[in-house]
Amino acid sequence: MEQNHVITDRLLKLRNKMKQDGIDWCYIPTGDFHNSEYVSDYFTIREFFSGFTGSNGTLLISADFAGLWTDGRYFIQAEQELKDTSIELFRMLDEGVPTINEYLESHIKKDQTLGFDGRVVPATMGEEIEKAVKKCAAFMNVEFDPAEMIWTIENGRSEMPCNPVRALSSDLTGMDCLEKIELVRAEMEKQNAKYHFISKLDDLMWLFNIRGNDVECNPVALCHALLSKEEAIVFIQKKALGTEMFEYFSSRKIEVYDYFEAAEVIKEKVTDGNILIDKKNISTKFHHILNEKCVVTNISNPTEMMKAVKNRTEIEKLRDVYLKDSVAVTKFIYEMKNAIDHKNYTEYEAAMRMDQIRMEIPECYDLSFPTICGYQANAAMMHYQAAEDRCAQVHAEGMLLVDSGGQFEGGTTDVTRTISMGEVTKKQKDHYTRVCRGMLNLSAVKFLYGCTGRNLDIIARQPMWETGMDYKCGTGHGIGYMLNVHEGPQSIRWQYVKTNVETVLEEGMIVSNEPGIYLDGEYGIRIENIMLCKKAEKNSDGQFMEFETLTYVPLDRAAVVSEMMSDIERERLNQYQANVYEKVSPYLTETEREWLYMETRPVS
Amino acid sequence: MEQNHVITDRLLKLRNKMKQDGIDWCYIPTGDFHNSEYVSDYFTIREFFSGFTGSNGTLLISADFAGLWTDGRYFIQAEQELKDTSIELFRMLDEGVPTINEYLESHIKKDQTLGFDGRVVPATMGEEIEKAVKKCAAFMNVEFDPAEMIWTIENGRSEMPCNPVRALSSDLTGMDCLEKIELVRAEMEKQNAKYHFISKLDDLMWLFNIRGNDVECNPVALCHALLSKEEAIVFIQKKALGTEMFEYFSSRKIEVYDYFEAAEVIKEKVTDGNILIDKKNISTKFHHILNEKCVVTNISNPTEMMKAVKNRTEIEKLRDVYLKDSVAVTKFIYEMKNAIDHKNYTEYEAAMRMDQIRMEIPECYDLSFPTICGYQANAAMMHYQAAEDRCAQVHAEGMLLVDSGGQFEGGTTDVTRTISMGEVTKKQKDHYTRVCRGMLNLSAVKFLYGCTGRNLDIIARQPMWETGMDYKCGTGHGIGYMLNVHEGPQSIRWQYVKTNVETVLEEGMIVSNEPGIYLDGEYGIRIENIMLCKKAEKNSDGQFMEFETLTYVPLDRAAVVSEMMSDIERERLNQYQANVYEKVSPYLTETEREWLYMETRPVS
Repeated sequence: MEQNHVITDRLLKLRNKMKQDGIDWCYIPTGDFHNSEYVSDYFTIREFFSGFTGSNGTLLISADFAGLWTDGRYFIQAEQELKDTSIELFRMLDEGVPTINEYLESHIKKDQTLGFDGRVVPATMGEEIEKAVKKCAAFMNVEFDPAEMIWTIENGRSEMPCNPVRALSSDLTGMDCLEKIELVRAEMEKQNAKYHFISKLDDLMWLFNIRGNDVECNPVALCHALLSKEEAIVFIQKKALGTEMFEYFSSRKIEVYDYFEAAEVIKEKVTDGNILIDKKNISTKFHHILNEKCVVTNISNPTEMMKAVKNRTEIEKLRDVYLKDSVAVTKFIYEMKNAIDHKNYTEYEAAMRMDQIRMEIPECYDLSFPTICGYQANAAMMHYQAAEDRCAQVHAEGMLLVDSGGQFEGGTTDVTRTISMGEVTKKQKDHYTRVCRGMLNLSAVKFLYGCTGRNLDIIARQPMWETGMDYKCGTGHGIGYMLNVHEGPQSIRWQYVKTNVETVLEEGMIVSNEPGIYLDGEYGIRIENIMLCKKAEKNSDGQFMEFETLTYVPLDRAAVVSEMMSDIERERLNQYQANVYEKVSPYLTETEREWLYMETRPVS
Repeated sequence: MEQNHVITDRLLKLRNKMKQDGIDWCYIPTGDFHNSEYVSDYFTIREFFSGFTGSNGTLLISADFAGLWTDGRYFIQAEQELKDTSIELFRMLDEGVPTINEYLESHIKKDQTLGFDGRVVPATMGEEIEKAVKKCAAFMNVEFDPAEMIWTIENGRSEMPCNPVRALSSDLTGMDCLEKIELVRAEMEKQNAKYHFISKLDDLMWLFNIRGNDVECNPVALCHALLSKEEAIVFIQKKALGTEMFEYFSSRKIEVYDYFEAAEVIKEKVTDGNILIDKKNISTKFHHILNEKCVVTNISNPTEMMKAVKNRTEIEKLRDVYLKDSVAVTKFIYEMKNAIDHKNYTEYEAAMRMDQIRMEIPECYDLSFPTICGYQANAAMMHYQAAEDRCAQVHAEGMLLVDSGGQFEGGTTDVTRTISMGEVTKKQKDHYTRVCRGMLNLSAVKFLYGCTGRNLDIIARQPMWETGMDYKCGTGHGIGYMLNVHEGPQSIRWQYVKTNVETVLEEGMIVSNEPGIYLDGEYGIRIENIMLCKKAEKNSDGQFMEFETLTYVPLDRAAVVSEMMSDIERERLNQYQANVYEKVSPYLTETEREWLYMETRPVS
């Protein structure tokens, strides 16, 4: 049997260290000190020990067991990356697959010790683990850093990121940070809280109207904040601040301490009374510190909901930015469809070309995530990353999936199109049409206020379910404004998880709509538009809600089988295509426009 | 201003009694000692004090306030019945309407006392009230019976019901009660419980394979049960048992105590260890008793889920009974459509005729609920009851809604059809078609195992929502087997209630599918079929599920506008109608069959 020596060697070192430190089980989540979804290289400890590069996964190690838990987006990818590592893959939410805590409960023995780094494990997760461990009369050590001494700077580990921080002007944010702080204080008062400690990076960026660059594609800076009625303190790497940033904070009476002073300062400042924290988004370490000092009220950070509901300024900017982004993607599609024969792109080159066209938009200063560009079978991996030296050639047949987005002065974009590059099979067309129907039907749905994403998911998923297929991921996620491309608390997914709190869809939220079909070894199809949630009519039956689509990129006419659509679905398709032509064509060259005209003609 | 003197007098008496007993707020739910949905006359205290006759509602009374909370099914009816009573209507789940506890919290004052009868308030509700009351530094008295001295037998109150109890044979139940008790004991062992106390009547009927008649249309007998590893005790009115019932119990080593001995006996028998109870379905009184004696584990009664998943015997019987029931309803529709001119029925007479035809089926021994028969505007009240002396004449035009069902040896049925009696308006046809589409689309839905009713509800509701309309009730409820017509834990509804636990739809569950449109003062349309949840294909994407329709009653061809349906919806309609003809026609007379043939012809 083959062996992945890099990984097995690392695991060997870890197991030796565990033995020395009296650790029987080691728990390694994906995460930085802030429970960020994406983390900078410095924090990719789980990847270091497993080789699995997906954005979500947890590793559990004992002397004779190694398991990785990840979600449906990554099943295919994880299978490949874990090959020959001896690490077992646990497919989260699949029937009969235990959760990591269920697994722990049935395997950890009395008096054994489970260790993890309390700085990278969120408090909620820490509590769950503690429960499982206690049930088995085992112990927990929250100060076990698996990377220490094994993965060091000398050993190729990156430095902790520390990039320049900037402040955004009010014509981009629509609201000064002092107004935002007052809104949060009002919420604190409602909850009878003296303090509020925040560790969630995008919440902090939103609150202070600042942006950093400490995580690839996510414009966030490592920091924490402590609010009281009188004080507002930010803990941030001082070397990341220019004089204008010190000025920005001091003119607003926001105190600045260094990032690494947080634990000491809060021990001093937080002495009694209630403190609001969001246990999902604060580390076990800080939770333990605060829990000792005062009474903890656990709620979602008030900033989370405030940030999710975009204000008028943000929405106006977003409409503009999404149109510009749509033009770029449309141009890219034109180029791929018309020039592929003589240009001979690889997936990597196609991704680079997409990025180049997008980055030519003056307002665009970064990607919002590394472009996913997968041809045929590679597209079946939802988060496939083509590498320059290891990727497929794109030919004038089959399908190319491109999922990409940008960071703009005025918004964050995200869009996916699956492009027929020439001849495609009947099955591919059938599947493209189903995905298309799902996406269009969800865009058109009208619903009563009070619905959460769980009510709506089936609208997009039905064309797949009715033929006995599924896509192993949610249908939609929230999106930040000049922030992270994945942002809560809203989402569109169907699974019932008893402990999950669902979020009602509010006017001003934006959410993606991205059903798909992924056939391992064959191809992947995903179509993703971004939608703004708005109020529709209000009458005696209640307040109705609907979506406005922000994305204007043509759907692939050649891949649609119109006979598989109902009249109303065809109408929806034709209307969308007409809208795309109307909005996008003014920004195209004549030849591009002619092509778009043909591409967006109504089907019958 | 008009006054409803009967009600205002009763409220006056209650307020005097409250004053004497030092009660500032009185809480009167709808309920017997078992949290039954429907209650016998003896327990209709809320109705006595409010005049509101709906099956769900809670009354809250203080010296200068009277409010009634009820759900969407009863908004129109409650408005009418509360007229001139000074009682304010609170429309549950409507935007901006406080829950009863929210109302309490913002109105009860420090040191005031809230009183209720702990025997009729479920433990969960009691705890919620306690929290609200404590938050306001007020007190709670759980031994305040509002009816005492005011509503007595001399005063027209019924006796507590005490009707004969019978046992069912295994060829009806598919499983002896001793097997069922062992299943429950296995669940107790899983939960590490020494005892299990059950108060839920339909669970108890299922468990012991007995049936009673203590609530109209619900074949239940008042009882409780206590299980331990060795003992099985039933507390039941001994006067309701014949010798064969004593024999039935004693041959199975089930001890019998009188119903009224329950409190004393459990105080004696339950001395330590864990006890399983379902706080939703046990009274505050018993909860307090048990809580003092041992450690309470609160879970849904294991019997609830076991009872909801029908076994093979039950399913076979149900298929047979639903077909017989469908034949009866089809005959009734034929008669209504063809004989109304010369028969001149009132709503009441039509309901009686429906009941008569159903009761002629040899296996049918009772109705499963009082038949709802509403003509035009009266049908807008979801649970309208036509009275012999106060009901509308049915004419050969407009629409008649008939919702009815029977108790059979072999199952409990429930079905609704809205019948066009002649000319109907364009708007009525539009609305009938929408309801029809919703019902058919939900019947045809395929979904992954793991879905709950909240995932599916929108499928039925969409034709209404897309035109800015809603029906103010759930889409579907579970149904008992030879038991209550409403049975949990599964349901099909869309609202998100954070504290509600949802139930995954399991193979063997039966559930109603009854979307509708209700226009106050104009008409009501509801179409209800009953569906059996079954496994569909299983593949690498998971276990798919689907429904088998048990009801075979024609849809109203004249009320359908086929152009408003998609091709696939027309196919679904035509297929359903063809199935009805195939199944039902063999049991009809020739003229009935000829009519049914025309009624079920495909639309195009």
